[in-house]
Amino acid sequence: MNAKTKGEIAQLIAHLKQRFGDRCALGQAIRDQHGKDVSFHPTRPPDAVVFAQSTQEVAAVVTLCHASSIPVIPFGTGTSCEGGVGAIEGGICIDLSHMSAILQVNTADFDCRVQAGVTRKQLNAELHGTGLHFPIDPGADASLGGMASTRASGTNAVRYGTMRDNVMSLQVVMANGEVIETGGRAKKSAAGYDLTRLFTGAEGTLGIITELTLRQHPLPECVSAARCGFPSLEAAIETVIQVIQAGIPLGRIEFLDELQVTACNRYSKLDLPEMPTLFFEFQGSPASLAEQVEMVEAIADDNGGAGYTSATTTEARAQLWQARHDVWWAALALRPGCQGIPTDACVPISKLGEAAAAAQQDVLDLGLIAPMCGHVGDGNFHLCIVVNPDDAEEMSRAEDLNARLMRRAISLGGTCTGEHGIGYGKLDFLELERGLSMHAMVAIKRALDPRNIMNPGKVLRFAAVP
Amino acid sequence: MNAKTKGEIAQLIAHLKQRFGDRCALGQAIRDQHGKDVSFHPTRPPDAVVFAQSTQEVAAVVTLCHASSIPVIPFGTGTSCEGGVGAIEGGICIDLSHMSAILQVNTADFDCRVQAGVTRKQLNAELHGTGLHFPIDPGADASLGGMASTRASGTNAVRYGTMRDNVMSLQVVMANGEVIETGGRAKKSAAGYDLTRLFTGAEGTLGIITELTLRQHPLPECVSAARCGFPSLEAAIETVIQVIQAGIPLGRIEFLDELQVTACNRYSKLDLPEMPTLFFEFQGSPASLAEQVEMVEAIADDNGGAGYTSATTTEARAQLWQARHDVWWAALALRPGCQGIPTDACVPISKLGEAAAAAQQDVLDLGLIAPMCGHVGDGNFHLCIVVNPDDAEEMSRAEDLNARLMRRAISLGGTCTGEHGIGYGKLDFLELERGLSMHAMVAIKRALDPRNIMNPGKVLRFAAVP
Repeated sequence: MNAKTKGEIAQLIAHLKQRFGDRCALGQAIRDQHGKDVSFHPTRPPDAVVFAQSTQEVAAVVTLCHASSIPVIPFGTGTSCEGGVGAIEGGICIDLSHMSAILQVNTADFDCRVQAGVTRKQLNAELHGTGLHFPIDPGADASLGGMASTRASGTNAVRYGTMRDNVMSLQVVMANGEVIETGGRAKKSAAGYDLTRLFTGAEGTLGIITELTLRQHPLPECVSAARCGFPSLEAAIETVIQVIQAGIPLGRIEFLDELQVTACNRYSKLDLPEMPTLFFEFQGSPASLAEQVEMVEAIADDNGGAGYTSATTTEARAQLWQARHDVWWAALALRPGCQGIPTDACVPISKLGEAAAAAQQDVLDLGLIAPMCGHVGDGNFHLCIVVNPDDAEEMSRAEDLNARLMRRAISLGGTCTGEHGIGYGKLDFLELERGLSMHAMVAIKRALDPRNIMNPGKVLRFAAVP
Repeated sequence: MNAKTKGEIAQLIAHLKQRFGDRCALGQAIRDQHGKDVSFHPTRPPDAVVFAQSTQEVAAVVTLCHASSIPVIPFGTGTSCEGGVGAIEGGICIDLSHMSAILQVNTADFDCRVQAGVTRKQLNAELHGTGLHFPIDPGADASLGGMASTRASGTNAVRYGTMRDNVMSLQVVMANGEVIETGGRAKKSAAGYDLTRLFTGAEGTLGIITELTLRQHPLPECVSAARCGFPSLEAAIETVIQVIQAGIPLGRIEFLDELQVTACNRYSKLDLPEMPTLFFEFQGSPASLAEQVEMVEAIADDNGGAGYTSATTTEARAQLWQARHDVWWAALALRPGCQGIPTDACVPISKLGEAAAAAQQDVLDLGLIAPMCGHVGDGNFHLCIVVNPDDAEEMSRAEDLNARLMRRAISLGGTCTGEHGIGYGKLDFLELERGLSMHAMVAIKRALDPRNIMNPGKVLRFAAVP
């Protein structure tokens, strides 16, 4: 899209002020806060922030922006990792956090209807006592609209899938202001194009998600946990493959490399053996749990596992998993005052050993500090590259590391992003990964947002249709 | 698209003959066979059938058709249910059944790569001995390309999901002849628009699937089965809801209504009590199976279940499930010489009792014979309307019944098709169900197939861009 003149934007803002009063904010602090997520990408403030309270209000803002071809950027909690909320071409940010009503909980159908600003913890608090939960857990207490937009997942994905698998239908405000509903409440459907999945992961570039119908899952009858160290990364990964191949229905299976364990020991005052370590969570009935724990111990043992420890009570489990929960802060504590850059490669499990070992070698070669953790049941691993953001040369080495990881993941049949999304940080790598299929993505973008007003500059490169 | 002149089509066919020789078939019998699926929709033969042997050949045919704006219809095994293969605007049928190579089986990653013409039974035969299987089972031994195209599912969906959940990536020939790959082999990805899901269920209207990367699943350690009668449809449905709410990981849960049980008794010489009946399949370890069977029996008992019977050996299980396996033929045998029309409503489980009871009442009101079976764990149920196809008045009552079922399913938050797709039999109902979101579907169709050559007239109404 062509850069809008200040006059055009001022005119639009005047309209918005008239309609939304104080809920149209122009202050620098609020604009800055809305132009930045948790990533290292610089703040790109929008020209104004509208705090919407209803789908109709979102549609009204989009309609006005559409008329003037001015960008619209949706904002949930600002916990994305690839600059997804930056107003890189200016425009109006629509903050959806006030749209936080849980509209329906259908316990018999294991589904619910929420506004896009509801956060996952808020939903789970509401579900308390129903025997159901919403298990997708990206770490942050993100908004469900934002989680759908980035196709988020996290530690539970090995059992429950990602947002892709747990969104049943979306209400979406389209670029022309039209409000559509992408699906229904049936557990399955063969009715037409899968628009629900198309908008899930589109990062607001095709429309703004305003309401969601989500699947819920029965709470597991019992939960237990285990932890085990391994002589090598390869031995740990081989354990993961065998556990999954055995059909053991794990709740979570997480990996920490040696440096990450060291970091956690220091940060959380633990004394775990400083070796590659797996963390397991088991879910099921008491009898099935006992079986699972025993089978996993046997497999770990076959692979040279050391210090296999399990726990059943909530408190003991939390203690056993402590190191896993602290990874981010423990990593940052390795270099006080520094910043973390999270990488997000995901590969077929059989390639995980190769990808992870090569990543560790890259870290050494580039002289960086970057402990590793991973949702290894999915082949997804993160480095937390701990850097001094004021050291341009070091930042450039960090960028190089991230690029190597992504290129390698792609060459191994994997992806440059398992769960963080593209934002504007990974445009080049999406093109590398998806090749000619970018033509289809661009054609879809052109079809649904010809004026390129929906979160422009994200996911793909596209210029408005003249 | 505008009707093509005979001359234009003759010219194209001459080209195809030159390139494909005998693999470009013009005989009436072959054309008729390719213009008909298992539905009651009349035969709509294509102008020619090309038996493709490679993606390059498919791309070559599509490129030629694109140049002349002549329709292309993909054909797998012809086992679709809504006229999906009918050449309703004429054109060239591409038969993919010769593209039947299993290209890769990655047992460590639980994935495989197949050509689109591979059937599900062929794939499972290949997987024999690996400890893995491909569980999606729509009944027919359909091609995997066709199953992806219609987003097929079947009895296993309650545990393994549908094709939507089991396709990891697709190779697709686009309308302009370009060949794209929609995804990779990572278990999850947040990389760009979900084209894999977009082509899954698009019924060949956006492109032709030529290869698939599919997920596989570990074979269950043990399997057992059970069957139980209920005093009423409501009691059976309530049992289903409670079993699922208890988090019991069923392999299958199927329902037969009283008339269907009667039909099966007659057809298969059984003596099941003629009452609404549930069929269960359990999967897991021995200890977990024992628990599951016991829990389900207790829940069935609470709901007035009678004659709860379980079985563990393969032979005993087959016998226990005999009636379920025979439903279609048993239904047809109620009126020898007649034909079956399968309906395919799917609703939220809490509405299943209401939808199924109303369906039975409709059958009575309309004086039809239509036993019911259902994948009730998904809220999906089928009537087999047994009709005399030569009796126009009866056929019109059958159509009325189907319409009532679809309207009711939609009004209950469900869908007009759980697993059969839209074809050209359900265009009106898709529009009713999806409302304004049809605009987005049409925009996508226009973007990816502006000349409307890809299986035109299916899924949605669209005229070529002038």
